[in-house]
Amino acid sequence: MIKAGIVGVTGYIGEELARILVQHPEVEIKAITSKSYAGQSYSNIYSNFSGLFDAACEEENLEKMAKELDIIFLALPHGLASKKLSKDILDKVKVIDLGADYRLCCKETYEQWYQTDHCSPDLLEQAVYGLSELKREDIKNAQLIANPGCYTTCSILSLYPLLKEDLMCKNSIIIDAKSGVSGAGRSLNVSTHYTECNESFKAYKIASHRHTPEIEQELSIAAGEDISLIFTPHLIPMNRGILATSYATLNENLSYNDILGVYNKYYADEYFVRIAKEGVYPETRWVKGSNFFDIGFTIDERTGRIIVIGCIDNLVKGAAGQAVQNMNIMFALDEKLGLSQVPIFPA
Amino acid sequence: MIKAGIVGVTGYIGEELARILVQHPEVEIKAITSKSYAGQSYSNIYSNFSGLFDAACEEENLEKMAKELDIIFLALPHGLASKKLSKDILDKVKVIDLGADYRLCCKETYEQWYQTDHCSPDLLEQAVYGLSELKREDIKNAQLIANPGCYTTCSILSLYPLLKEDLMCKNSIIIDAKSGVSGAGRSLNVSTHYTECNESFKAYKIASHRHTPEIEQELSIAAGEDISLIFTPHLIPMNRGILATSYATLNENLSYNDILGVYNKYYADEYFVRIAKEGVYPETRWVKGSNFFDIGFTIDERTGRIIVIGCIDNLVKGAAGQAVQNMNIMFALDEKLGLSQVPIFPA
Amino acid sequence: MIKAGIVGVTGYIGEELARILVQHPEVEIKAITSKSYAGQSYSNIYSNFSGLFDAACEEENLEKMAKELDIIFLALPHGLASKKLSKDILDKVKVIDLGADYRLCCKETYEQWYQTDHCSPDLLEQAVYGLSELKREDIKNAQLIANPGCYTTCSILSLYPLLKEDLMCKNSIIIDAKSGVSGAGRSLNVSTHYTECNESFKAYKIASHRHTPEIEQELSIAAGEDISLIFTPHLIPMNRGILATSYATLNENLSYNDILGVYNKYYADEYFVRIAKEGVYPETRWVKGSNFFDIGFTIDERTGRIIVIGCIDNLVKGAAGQAVQNMNIMFALDEKLGLSQVPIFPA
Amino acid sequence: MIKAGIVGVTGYIGEELARILVQHPEVEIKAITSKSYAGQSYSNIYSNFSGLFDAACEEENLEKMAKELDIIFLALPHGLASKKLSKDILDKVKVIDLGADYRLCCKETYEQWYQTDHCSPDLLEQAVYGLSELKREDIKNAQLIANPGCYTTCSILSLYPLLKEDLMCKNSIIIDAKSGVSGAGRSLNVSTHYTECNESFKAYKIASHRHTPEIEQELSIAAGEDISLIFTPHLIPMNRGILATSYATLNENLSYNDILGVYNKYYADEYFVRIAKEGVYPETRWVKGSNFFDIGFTIDERTGRIIVIGCIDNLVKGAAGQAVQNMNIMFALDEKLGLSQVPIFPA
Repeated sequence: MIKAGIVGVTGYIGEELARILVQHPEVEIKAITSKSYAGQSYSNIYSNFSGLFDAACEEENLEKMAKELDIIFLALPHGLASKKLSKDILDKVKVIDLGADYRLCCKETYEQWYQTDHCSPDLLEQAVYGLSELKREDIKNAQLIANPGCYTTCSILSLYPLLKEDLMCKNSIIIDAKSGVSGAGRSLNVSTHYTECNESFKAYKIASHRHTPEIEQELSIAAGEDISLIFTPHLIPMNRGILATSYATLNENLSYNDILGVYNKYYADEYFVRIAKEGVYPETRWVKGSNFFDIGFTIDERTGRIIVIGCIDNLVKGAAGQAVQNMNIMFALDEKLGLSQVPIFPA
Repeated sequence: MIKAGIVGVTGYIGEELARILVQHPEVEIKAITSKSYAGQSYSNIYSNFSGLFDAACEEENLEKMAKELDIIFLALPHGLASKKLSKDILDKVKVIDLGADYRLCCKETYEQWYQTDHCSPDLLEQAVYGLSELKREDIKNAQLIANPGCYTTCSILSLYPLLKEDLMCKNSIIIDAKSGVSGAGRSLNVSTHYTECNESFKAYKIASHRHTPEIEQELSIAAGEDISLIFTPHLIPMNRGILATSYATLNENLSYNDILGVYNKYYADEYFVRIAKEGVYPETRWVKGSNFFDIGFTIDERTGRIIVIGCIDNLVKGAAGQAVQNMNIMFALDEKLGLSQVPIFPA
Repeated sequence: MIKAGIVGVTGYIGEELARILVQHPEVEIKAITSKSYAGQSYSNIYSNFSGLFDAACEEENLEKMAKELDIIFLALPHGLASKKLSKDILDKVKVIDLGADYRLCCKETYEQWYQTDHCSPDLLEQAVYGLSELKREDIKNAQLIANPGCYTTCSILSLYPLLKEDLMCKNSIIIDAKSGVSGAGRSLNVSTHYTECNESFKAYKIASHRHTPEIEQELSIAAGEDISLIFTPHLIPMNRGILATSYATLNENLSYNDILGVYNKYYADEYFVRIAKEGVYPETRWVKGSNFFDIGFTIDERTGRIIVIGCIDNLVKGAAGQAVQNMNIMFALDEKLGLSQVPIFPA
Repeated sequence: MIKAGIVGVTGYIGEELARILVQHPEVEIKAITSKSYAGQSYSNIYSNFSGLFDAACEEENLEKMAKELDIIFLALPHGLASKKLSKDILDKVKVIDLGADYRLCCKETYEQWYQTDHCSPDLLEQAVYGLSELKREDIKNAQLIANPGCYTTCSILSLYPLLKEDLMCKNSIIIDAKSGVSGAGRSLNVSTHYTECNESFKAYKIASHRHTPEIEQELSIAAGEDISLIFTPHLIPMNRGILATSYATLNENLSYNDILGVYNKYYADEYFVRIAKEGVYPETRWVKGSNFFDIGFTIDERTGRIIVIGCIDNLVKGAAGQAVQNMNIMFALDEKLGLSQVPIFPA
């Protein structure tokens, strides 16, 4: 059994990790930590765990955890992981960071977008960007995984094959993304107060959201050159789910089947990627509670553009599920272990 | 492997059954039938099943199914099962009926409340009312299970121990129940059109809901005498979950701990029943996607009444989950098999 | 024009007051105050007011307001009004307090349920309980109105005529009430964080909610003797609306028409009370955005009880709308002025 | 008083028209018609109107209505108005058609996108496209108004000034639009069944929505040349509101203030257009229940594109409200009459 610890277990990502790991046949959760709830029983905070997982939240002690555990999941606000992690800890334990601190290769880009110092830039090179389908080989031997953001997972998986195969005008990309409110986390804020976001819809952080450089970084690698794109997030009045509508101008006269062939080349063998039939488009309800990334697309011949629709559950494939998928890869387990639930509907 | 069939697989209860059974380690779904969707692939109807379960819906043929299967689940509108079932079929196959046709012992009561003839009253005696926690011994050897209704499961489990132990005034019971919209099924109706029920709340079928005689029947058995009660259902603008607030006058001066002792006597060993700590009350979110029945209560000393709060996921413990729990009992499997998921939150 | 001020204009009740008064043909809002937002333009806080009402929030100065205004609306958390008000202020200006401080006649009851001192008990006798339909004559000459709570308005209007006419067993009353989330206000709290209450339903403050003594006080006056009842509030995942399902044992063998006659006696001439036809029950959607109280009822002959359904918009008839109705009465205006909007649906 | 009739009064647009007109000081609703509900009292269908408007729905008789009324509003599915209207009727009465039949100047375009014959192409030239802010002069003297679609109103108002002033690359336009469910109307359909769209988000009619040619027609007129654009509608799980996120490449190096100047040129005097401050973006909640179009924008200097956010209430400015605005213009009334309500929040 893999001995796992979750740091920051009382946020929604930490809680989803706990939910998945409690049910994972090869994992034992040996430590959970919380700054705000130290000393409290977990099922007192999240009653869904009553009778199923009643461990107490502890104060965080990374050194102790590093010695006793096989893997540590960090589910922390950005800026904290880069302070806490060190080569010393990584010598002793595998770490999957679900925050943003090790996602951007370039320290300066991180500091510019996140407006904070990066405290362990020496670890950046070692970190593997954990988009499981695209970095599987690197993940196998990684000691530190930078688990991708929710919007970024959905956006990159939507466009990666097209850029890798050089099928579109690189600076024509527009990603119009929409997320349920759980993506904003559990911290109280007037913008996520029930009556402030229920029955309303808005765009936010227009042309300035922090997932932008992360998407650009990975798509630039795919394209082999620097890409600038527009990424516009919106808030949907619902709990879970991300849908990204991506637009780009196709390089040449490509047919639906040409594009389908390219997606199949990259995704046909990927269990967690489901390509919709022609004329069918993903909806967030069909992936809820699961690690699937669903994708569909069409070509608008009138304008020469492709429109790609991608969907994930932001807390699963967009966070905790992909982290577990990465853990499975790191420990040479079946990649689907603990992640094989049928999406729940209606829910 | 148990060979199972689902008749009426495209309603929400049928779909939840499919979801649970696809993931059940001892079951193979060998046949699914649908009147409206015969010939169509299941994942075309419910895309959450894409890549996971792609069987085609068939026309129903109960005789054939009876010969080839170990168990048939009927997820049909009331009135149909009583037409389709016969001793002949039941000689060959176990049946769990998730509709109302075999829940009421008395043919006349059924015909009065459901305003239709009962076409196989000879089977009524054979049918076991499948409230798993209360009828486990009978279920073990049953060939025909009448799976309880959603409201009734929640209501009966809330009050059964108190009546069985004769702790309350028998004609003082009021059950004020509230359900999410999935309880109304998938058939189109203006009252479940999105914009008609979203952002609104109402009571419906006041003093006339068909689950009333079912609750009264089972609580009368517990009490050893005929009980009349008030049952008022309400519609909550959300997908899943039932919460029942029950009121009754206590017979004598009983303390919280006296009552807790009684609930523990009946439920302490029941995996799927979770009794909340004093001062804590169940909420529907904590049971979502699971087979749990959560219960909490308080005594209002000012009025001498007990207030009991019970919660279930209407599609799981209120329908498909309890059906699978009953199947597990019937086939001498671990009662939790296929039903051990942690409730999903936020979802 | 009536010169009005709103103290606590940035809570939801203050904002609804502003919305109604901006549209009121006989009122000019001369001052708005806010502790948290002093100095900010109102339409910066609530963009629905952009271009319509752009006054700046001021620091509160009750003495100054008393001198310059005709009426002050206090929309404050409980405990503050009783500190701020004085005979001196009330000599100069009419006050409608939308909080709880002057609703209970008895200082001790207030201090027991609200767990705080009452700082101006000398004003209690002067305060008129502002349930417009029941206290119209007193309101006309009042200088200080204690505007009723949302749950209480709905509950009292549901049962008052039956108690006044001595038609039911006085200690048999159970009020099972349900409210949308706006009733909890705009203060941040984990229980009203979007993802914590969306898609869930719960009871709260069971047998202990502060509206209980207020309902009991007014219904006891109606009954002519002390009444104890059960009041159970629940939280509905929607923005606006209260529905109260009330149960009581009828004293004698009364018919539907007997009861209807009694309701008509009290409400037939009341513009803001709408009695549903037999077999029809109020739903919160039908009163949204309006000052109506809708009521319907049935008699359950099997148990000898009446079931009454009452509905209001908690921010309008349950707060700001009734306050304006009271103001209209106090200033001898048409009681409907500014309150004649058709309920908005679907919304 | 203007004598008005509403044909198709039981759909959501008809109902919103009734709500606005009941409150309009210069209008009397003299006739309402419904195919499905003829003979029924309106407040039996929509209980929000109880006590306020209890007329009976009639069978439609356009000739009779034309003789007796001053204006007829048609709120019908597409294809019906073109069958019912004639020069003869239009000689007698003003007509505002809220459907699609007279929006497209070109009969062939209509027949291609709507897949039905146009039965009165001779009336097309006479019809004025009723986007009030842009066609005010034509509307004044119109006898037949083609009231714009909801998505189109929001899209055209978002981009018209930029195209009119030739500020952007004409074939770079992408409109990613999102609508609440009331836009889909009241007809039953599995896609608008509560549990099918609640807690989910999807794109639909991708590259094929019928509002596309309507947007292109009006923006082509503004641009002075034919424009092809991408229009992608999405369904938001909420009742009301449309938000359109539009993207286009700016022609030259334009600053925020340059663009603001252009919007001000067209909209500064428009009561129903509210331009947000820099850094602020419209949200659907701020226009709910009102006739406002809110707009905000930013320039993404990294990609040379402008991002424009526009918001309306789809049933008001997107349908019934704009129809009443057009009626006010046609009858030389204050354009705001009956439309001056502050948007309702939270609702």
